[in-house]
Amino acid sequence: MDNVFERNIQAALTAVARRKELANVFFVACGGSFAQMHAPKYVLDRESTTLSSETYNAAEFVVRDLPRLGPSSVVFLCSSSGNTPETVAAARFARSRGAYTVGLTTKPECELAQAVDSTVTYLSRPAEANADSAGAALLRLAFGLLRDREGNRKHDALATSLAALPGLVAQAQAEHAEAALRWANAVKREPVIYTMASGPNYGVAYAFAICILQEMQWIHTQAIHAGEYFHGPFEITDDAVPFILLLGHGACRKLDQRALDFTRKFTDKILTIDVEALGLPGIAPEVLEFLQPLVLQPLLRTYAIRLSESRGHPLTVRRYMWAMEY
Amino acid sequence: MDNVFERNIQAALTAVARRKELANVFFVACGGSFAQMHAPKYVLDRESTTLSSETYNAAEFVVRDLPRLGPSSVVFLCSSSGNTPETVAAARFARSRGAYTVGLTTKPECELAQAVDSTVTYLSRPAEANADSAGAALLRLAFGLLRDREGNRKHDALATSLAALPGLVAQAQAEHAEAALRWANAVKREPVIYTMASGPNYGVAYAFAICILQEMQWIHTQAIHAGEYFHGPFEITDDAVPFILLLGHGACRKLDQRALDFTRKFTDKILTIDVEALGLPGIAPEVLEFLQPLVLQPLLRTYAIRLSESRGHPLTVRRYMWAMEY
Repeated sequence: MDNVFERNIQAALTAVARRKELANVFFVACGGSFAQMHAPKYVLDRESTTLSSETYNAAEFVVRDLPRLGPSSVVFLCSSSGNTPETVAAARFARSRGAYTVGLTTKPECELAQAVDSTVTYLSRPAEANADSAGAALLRLAFGLLRDREGNRKHDALATSLAALPGLVAQAQAEHAEAALRWANAVKREPVIYTMASGPNYGVAYAFAICILQEMQWIHTQAIHAGEYFHGPFEITDDAVPFILLLGHGACRKLDQRALDFTRKFTDKILTIDVEALGLPGIAPEVLEFLQPLVLQPLLRTYAIRLSESRGHPLTVRRYMWAMEY
Repeated sequence: MDNVFERNIQAALTAVARRKELANVFFVACGGSFAQMHAPKYVLDRESTTLSSETYNAAEFVVRDLPRLGPSSVVFLCSSSGNTPETVAAARFARSRGAYTVGLTTKPECELAQAVDSTVTYLSRPAEANADSAGAALLRLAFGLLRDREGNRKHDALATSLAALPGLVAQAQAEHAEAALRWANAVKREPVIYTMASGPNYGVAYAFAICILQEMQWIHTQAIHAGEYFHGPFEITDDAVPFILLLGHGACRKLDQRALDFTRKFTDKILTIDVEALGLPGIAPEVLEFLQPLVLQPLLRTYAIRLSESRGHPLTVRRYMWAMEY
């Protein structure tokens, strides 16, 4: 683990702890970074007795212009490149309103770092698990905040469990290697692939839908919330329609299981990733629920890589992104 | 306007006002009713200086089991039939935790009404605008709450403007009659139709995607947030891919306009509904931003009806919903 990362996390938490009154926590970003924000909100929802939190796309956050945003707010923002214009603008906007701003980025000299009060520099390796990823930083910050404000005791178990992640995920990826190849060949001509999840894993399903399937493979999709599935989306279930279902660990599992049970009645085209089947020794049971998105994301990347190979469409190819003005 | 509706709204607001401390507002429902919850959250976000609010799918709300849920919470729940199991369970759960619960339903004798502290009985007429719809009730409750807690003065302008809605929407529907027919014929063989919106209109785009396109027409879709579009989804833009874009009024308009400008470069298959082109005399300017979803929803229903006719697939046909156990 990079010591800079540890120092960044501690500095951000120390500064946030200095704010006496804290009324609002906002998690703000775009696209894949926005998808990461669901997990720390889930932590605060499940664990906090006092802190409400909200997630916003960065552009929406700025135009929404909440009167509540002010000195008793803390805003966490994330941009891998550190120059996503909407996220940089959101950081400047929040800071100008007196909020305490923490920016996560891979580039310590970027625009986001210059716009915020505290910077956390992370390492982006989407095909692996690492304890100094953006997702890890956000969980550390959420549990650190809970420790400092409310005496929550899970931060250290989380940090220890994060250190065990790389090996565990590499093993899970090896165990899934063949399944990924089979799946990629089976779905390579599919025009639509849905993802489905709930609870802390919804962000993973959303990221796979918009960043992998739409952005990198030009495949139609929607990240269906497993609880919403039965109130509309399930009518498109059919033996011709493939799903990726994330069967989570913890409170959300029964929502995922119910959706899976229904889907199975009508189609075999379901890729199910069951967190509980992965074993995951070394993860403290009390934090597995929160940390599971950081297992699922790189594991799904293994499937994404095989999909890109079976389709002959590299994950790096874009037709619009970075290729033109927009 | 039904006096029962007025009495219900007032009784709920009076009871909520009696709760001295109010720390959390939760908007909880499933599917189409869940989609309605984004607009009142938008009201609180834009107008409130003190109240944070969150929206949850009802099943997710129960399993998430927030420690913050308690006597200083108010929970608004909605189910047209009043017997959506997840929503009834969420109401019982919230009330057992001491939260004040307000249930919106079309059936005053339903399970939801029996589970909550206050009931608001509304009239569901999805093809028309009416001042006693669920959406209208939620806006009245949000602005009533703001009036009682913070002295916000927009409630009465909202109520007056809601009364003007039926005539205005009927006129907009008449003006769009031909366009709806043309659009329905043009897209009737499309396997995928995306919807896109931001701000207060995101819920309308979501409802059209999951309730009309997926549930009632078995068409693949995703409700894309206009601010998220540029961070993944826009890579599926192509002259073969149809979009429905809601060009809103107010703060969100520039997000919608940016998405529209990009989409237009690559495809003509865009149905744009521009709120500002509708005129809408009789709507007080200071509440149009909040009330626009109640214009867009029934106007889009005109398009949905034409689509169902052009496809020979009535909006009432389901293969799974209400037809089996799930």
